[in-house]
Amino acid sequence: MNWIDEGALYAQITSFLREDLGRGDITTQSIIARNTRARARFVAGENMIVAGLEAAEEVFFTLDSQQQLEAFVSDGEAVEAGKVIARMIGFADVLISAHRVALNLLQRLSGVATLTNNYVKAVEGTAAQITDTRATTPGLRPLERYAVELGGGYNSRFGLDDGVLVTLDHIAILGGVAGAVRTAKEKLGYVHKVAVQVANENDVREAVDAGADVIVIEDLNPTEFGRLAVIARERSSAVAVECGGNITLANVREYAEAGAQLIRVEALTNAAPAANISFQVQPF
Amino acid sequence: MNWIDEGALYAQITSFLREDLGRGDITTQSIIARNTRARARFVAGENMIVAGLEAAEEVFFTLDSQQQLEAFVSDGEAVEAGKVIARMIGFADVLISAHRVALNLLQRLSGVATLTNNYVKAVEGTAAQITDTRATTPGLRPLERYAVELGGGYNSRFGLDDGVLVTLDHIAILGGVAGAVRTAKEKLGYVHKVAVQVANENDVREAVDAGADVIVIEDLNPTEFGRLAVIARERSSAVAVECGGNITLANVREYAEAGAQLIRVEALTNAAPAANISFQVQPF
Amino acid sequence: MNWIDEGALYAQITSFLREDLGRGDITTQSIIARNTRARARFVAGENMIVAGLEAAEEVFFTLDSQQQLEAFVSDGEAVEAGKVIARMIGFADVLISAHRVALNLLQRLSGVATLTNNYVKAVEGTAAQITDTRATTPGLRPLERYAVELGGGYNSRFGLDDGVLVTLDHIAILGGVAGAVRTAKEKLGYVHKVAVQVANENDVREAVDAGADVIVIEDLNPTEFGRLAVIARERSSAVAVECGGNITLANVREYAEAGAQLIRVEALTNAAPAANISFQVQPF
Amino acid sequence: MNWIDEGALYAQITSFLREDLGRGDITTQSIIARNTRARARFVAGENMIVAGLEAAEEVFFTLDSQQQLEAFVSDGEAVEAGKVIARMIGFADVLISAHRVALNLLQRLSGVATLTNNYVKAVEGTAAQITDTRATTPGLRPLERYAVELGGGYNSRFGLDDGVLVTLDHIAILGGVAGAVRTAKEKLGYVHKVAVQVANENDVREAVDAGADVIVIEDLNPTEFGRLAVIARERSSAVAVECGGNITLANVREYAEAGAQLIRVEALTNAAPAANISFQVQPF
Amino acid sequence: MNWIDEGALYAQITSFLREDLGRGDITTQSIIARNTRARARFVAGENMIVAGLEAAEEVFFTLDSQQQLEAFVSDGEAVEAGKVIARMIGFADVLISAHRVALNLLQRLSGVATLTNNYVKAVEGTAAQITDTRATTPGLRPLERYAVELGGGYNSRFGLDDGVLVTLDHIAILGGVAGAVRTAKEKLGYVHKVAVQVANENDVREAVDAGADVIVIEDLNPTEFGRLAVIARERSSAVAVECGGNITLANVREYAEAGAQLIRVEALTNAAPAANISFQVQPF
Amino acid sequence: MNWIDEGALYAQITSFLREDLGRGDITTQSIIARNTRARARFVAGENMIVAGLEAAEEVFFTLDSQQQLEAFVSDGEAVEAGKVIARMIGFADVLISAHRVALNLLQRLSGVATLTNNYVKAVEGTAAQITDTRATTPGLRPLERYAVELGGGYNSRFGLDDGVLVTLDHIAILGGVAGAVRTAKEKLGYVHKVAVQVANENDVREAVDAGADVIVIEDLNPTEFGRLAVIARERSSAVAVECGGNITLANVREYAEAGAQLIRVEALTNAAPAANISFQVQPF
Repeated sequence: MNWIDEGALYAQITSFLREDLGRGDITTQSIIARNTRARARFVAGENMIVAGLEAAEEVFFTLDSQQQLEAFVSDGEAVEAGKVIARMIGFADVLISAHRVALNLLQRLSGVATLTNNYVKAVEGTAAQITDTRATTPGLRPLERYAVELGGGYNSRFGLDDGVLVTLDHIAILGGVAGAVRTAKEKLGYVHKVAVQVANENDVREAVDAGADVIVIEDLNPTEFGRLAVIARERSSAVAVECGGNITLANVREYAEAGAQLIRVEALTNAAPAANISFQVQPF
Repeated sequence: MNWIDEGALYAQITSFLREDLGRGDITTQSIIARNTRARARFVAGENMIVAGLEAAEEVFFTLDSQQQLEAFVSDGEAVEAGKVIARMIGFADVLISAHRVALNLLQRLSGVATLTNNYVKAVEGTAAQITDTRATTPGLRPLERYAVELGGGYNSRFGLDDGVLVTLDHIAILGGVAGAVRTAKEKLGYVHKVAVQVANENDVREAVDAGADVIVIEDLNPTEFGRLAVIARERSSAVAVECGGNITLANVREYAEAGAQLIRVEALTNAAPAANISFQVQPF
Repeated sequence: MNWIDEGALYAQITSFLREDLGRGDITTQSIIARNTRARARFVAGENMIVAGLEAAEEVFFTLDSQQQLEAFVSDGEAVEAGKVIARMIGFADVLISAHRVALNLLQRLSGVATLTNNYVKAVEGTAAQITDTRATTPGLRPLERYAVELGGGYNSRFGLDDGVLVTLDHIAILGGVAGAVRTAKEKLGYVHKVAVQVANENDVREAVDAGADVIVIEDLNPTEFGRLAVIARERSSAVAVECGGNITLANVREYAEAGAQLIRVEALTNAAPAANISFQVQPF
Repeated sequence: MNWIDEGALYAQITSFLREDLGRGDITTQSIIARNTRARARFVAGENMIVAGLEAAEEVFFTLDSQQQLEAFVSDGEAVEAGKVIARMIGFADVLISAHRVALNLLQRLSGVATLTNNYVKAVEGTAAQITDTRATTPGLRPLERYAVELGGGYNSRFGLDDGVLVTLDHIAILGGVAGAVRTAKEKLGYVHKVAVQVANENDVREAVDAGADVIVIEDLNPTEFGRLAVIARERSSAVAVECGGNITLANVREYAEAGAQLIRVEALTNAAPAANISFQVQPF
Repeated sequence: MNWIDEGALYAQITSFLREDLGRGDITTQSIIARNTRARARFVAGENMIVAGLEAAEEVFFTLDSQQQLEAFVSDGEAVEAGKVIARMIGFADVLISAHRVALNLLQRLSGVATLTNNYVKAVEGTAAQITDTRATTPGLRPLERYAVELGGGYNSRFGLDDGVLVTLDHIAILGGVAGAVRTAKEKLGYVHKVAVQVANENDVREAVDAGADVIVIEDLNPTEFGRLAVIARERSSAVAVECGGNITLANVREYAEAGAQLIRVEALTNAAPAANISFQVQPF
Repeated sequence: MNWIDEGALYAQITSFLREDLGRGDITTQSIIARNTRARARFVAGENMIVAGLEAAEEVFFTLDSQQQLEAFVSDGEAVEAGKVIARMIGFADVLISAHRVALNLLQRLSGVATLTNNYVKAVEGTAAQITDTRATTPGLRPLERYAVELGGGYNSRFGLDDGVLVTLDHIAILGGVAGAVRTAKEKLGYVHKVAVQVANENDVREAVDAGADVIVIEDLNPTEFGRLAVIARERSSAVAVECGGNITLANVREYAEAGAQLIRVEALTNAAPAANISFQVQPF
């Protein structure tokens, strides 16, 4: 992540803490004396790719700018159940009040990285790259894209403004592939590659002939997908072929072997369960 | 949701759209003429409890304040796979540019409502209430709490500032249950109920005798949980008993039958996969 | 105050300075050379409880992050007229430009703490607690609650979202006490105590029988108040009795002696005159 | 107030409501059905100048953009105890949830207007104008200045950036009056009048000779003040004389009769108790 | 402009008005009665391409949401000196207080459009496109890009995040062209075209061979530029050639005739003088 | 500039960087390794008054709080073409990613200072002061006023709220000069000087007699301007005379010699071309 993301992350974490703490942690303030020292640790409850340690540390840091987190692994590393991921020494009230937001981020991002990694391992040895989609959690896209990268996946365009993809919805409105591709290339082609989603063999020919840089094929079975991929590449060696739709851990390798160079998987960011990580505080 | 939530939701949806659209949907702007009319629909791809229709409509409305959504079901209603949930008539560019954010919200919230409902059905006929926790997606807590309610679950405290829960972390620092409960009651007891997490039989006695209003027992098996619940209630008929920890769809009923009045389930909001809902645009 | 309040305080102080300085202190900028050193002091002009020193220091700190304030008393301490409360050494322009906002806060908060303390002393030796209300200065509630505490008073609920009080307005709409109390307990009773404002003996009985945790009685004379308080407590030893309405320094002790456990006083935060404190700058 | 104040007021009222309602009025939401109609009224509990009706209406409007307030008097009008100031018909939940913020503003501003008016009446028949100072409530300066005007007082400079006042603090640093006045006139004199605070007869002569437009004399008794005022005006007929310091309702007329053209009174905005106004809701 | 730009524009215009009006137009408020009707008009003082009418209208609309502007030309249209561009009927105070901000925008944007148009006309009949650069006024980039389009120019990438340009600065650090191009293509090439700035013939060959999509050549004379352009296109027919550097109205056609497909001109947005437009108000 | 301007500047620079960098400099991030050290310098491409070095440094500082800029000249200093204005040592990615925003500010502000200085030199030896106007770039007024000062010009009122100017537009609505001046003096005259724009000899007499402090005469030729200036000063020695309208470098001295004490020049801030300054990065 760069400074822009970092700046935005910092602002977000403040708002996440505000969501959880509101006017303050009344329980902790009423029973724990300020300046009580304590130790705490994060422990993996299952095998996982860890993601979000920097974000987690930032949560504590936001409450207490002296608070540090000693990580025993790096973001992106694989750990086994039982592993102590990180430990902290600091004020008991800070550790207790902040931990839930930190844990919510760490569990979710580790969940995304872990699921991504499972897909990446499923296509190991093929030429296919696993990529994320725009099916992210609203508000968390930069963090989830980062987790996808940590899991070995690739990022697609960030949003609607930095990449060009002509979808079936566009084509339904326009009534054809070729015109859409040509217009997009004319207006945006000096800066952007033009990707086009196609539904059938005819679309593939039209799109390639109109100069599409990337052909996206969704919701076909691996055999049919493979047939269209071959047609596309025969027509132009410069074109890239991407698949998407109902990709699962069970079928992803079939698409890779059928010739997908890019495989977009919505589940990476909208169906990853939180990784099991616990947090405990103890007297110093 | 009340006006405050609505105001916050509106601001959030603007930021969600900004996350996805950035400086604008360059593809759509380059190939779809403004003022092109189109129709669109949301279709359920599996059985689910629908949640988030109002939020979805708000997404389109934010781009075009004339845009409305005609829903065929209400938030909280159960639908079967194939059901057309809602349809829209409007400008093609608005429908296409906004749909991903709307879908991301609708799928996620319907996922939460559906999973919650599965837990609720699992304890049907017992006295237990399924409640959410603070293990929500950072930034989406109000929406996810709303989805839990739609699924038949109950909301626990919103955050650290509007309810009192003495946890094992507090007790580890303080070295005992009784003092924590008494201090919390003295300082906050005129306004708030005091809940206490306990680890064993001795804790239960101490907590009840110190005046705790709610006893929270986590990570015990149903039998052991039930034994402590009985002890708590024998000591004070006014006390409520809540269970938590590794609650799953497979074991939740056992805890309910063991006497849990409240069962807190983190998975409701941190492990619900997005519901399968599709969105298609067609010429008007 | 905790970090959340501190964060909000910092943002507020910036806006308070912006309100007063706008685009800058044109007089001082035109006649005082930058980097001119000076000394300054705050002097009490009457007997008072001091409140707001941290806020005052923050004002100067916001203009010059090197600026410190050396306080000779702590927030909450009683001082006599003529006492030098604090002194500062720093840049003349910073001291002059910032002092009005600092003084406005310090005078107002010390006024609240001093008036609160007068009420607290008036009920000394009784069981009554003096509490604040929501009749605070819009925008200054956290600071004024803090001043009330410094004066020896207690804080009631912060706002409408963290405590439950059924008022006569609610009851006027609903047509009765019992139903309101029962509904509130059912929906909010696991987390919150339920307080109810009552108007007469019948209301008291209904409220206590329906399970109200706190009975609030306003605008009765001390004798009549005392009679209802006895009825409430006879009916349930667990109920607390609170009084409010036109409480003055002249009559507050009568209510305390009539059995009020909590006495809510609007004047603490809406009728306290600014304490008399002066600020002078001198060459270094 | 102009649009800028109105825009700022609107934003402030949202933040005031957020301060009081936080995540929502949990009591009202749990017991009052939405869409229940009710009537409400504001009643004066003492004689006063009313100020803040527009702000009060804005509070309700912010919660419900259909909500109106029917005022029976205008801002700035004098009313007697018992007078119904305004009435409203609307949704019970809106009326109940919003009323405290509205009342806090209306009571405070009416208090300022009423106290100002008492000062104005005390100097009736003299040439003196009562003016406010910068000793306002942080965050409420525009509203309090408006209330001062309604009470018949005059507004001094808004802040440090739109008027020039050389104070004793500046003079203490600079070591003399004349140079400060001359520099201020040279740098700011094409746009602003230059006012100077003086401590003694010599200062008066220096200030007038250096071209000061307004002479400010504080903390002298009326006789001594009058003597210096005469000296100032003898030296230049163009100069205006202003007094300040410990002005009270008891002594203000003496200063007016001693020749003060402007009398600045801090108490207007920092010692006015909230006016006694009540609010009641009834079924429709 | 799309909704995102429009939303941002609206926020900006509010801040522009706040910059100019601050706490309000004190002159107008003191001497013009509210609700005084007036008429006003914008008149061209020289020949120009008009740009910014929508922004100008938005300025007035922000002060008074009833205020409309009747334009006699459209954005992008050429007008001659003396032409009445637009007229308004509304409140005198709104027209007077808002007009300076409106005029500042309209003059500046018309200046940009007019200068752009002069460059476009200078290359008429050639294949060259005039494009803007990132040398825009900080804060006004979207508006200035819009003015460039109105003048007949093309927009280059919006910022550093939506297009890829390897500059001489990058190459100086990396020590060579080929590696930079290859890395950029590998990491960003599925979504973006890769443009490379080159300094000499060798760079051209390296860049084209490494797969660059656009070759940017700056600060060479037209002959030398033309020579390199030929080399680039001989090596790959797919590559586009762009020129930049010290392009002036005097030399731009030479570059166009030497084979530049794109000519980037910093002056469009950083050296266009405000167009001469006047604004007058008259009684209705 | 004071802290308020500095605070606002800091916020603006962040938004300027966000405008240019958006989600990050994708080119630099993909090809330059983090922590690569580099050197860079700013070089004057023509003779100029330098302005904006502090703002330029702040741009880099915002991306990397360790980054400093070593300036070889101060803001306001004259430099010749070829002069190295400043140099920097730091991280290559920071230097490259931030430089465009820094350069945009430095070029624009140096352009304003240089043009202002040309006007100042044109009236050298006369009593006239060159002043700026409100014809500034929206959003950049504080910086441009600062550049005007560096060029030797004077600042007029900041905005509509801190100075009083009755214009021809006001007079057109009111139907006469005298009443407007008297009302403005009565309402604002204790704090502000009153300036009046006049159109003819009769207006001059009316304005001076009504007590105007400054007479503004626009759009007359120097001779006619001089005649009215004499009339104004004969009538009151206290009045100041200001001229404006179509002032150019060619005619400004004539107005100065005709007796203008203040000459307002819109071109200073709306027609100054960016100064020619280049920025280059090299390996460390």
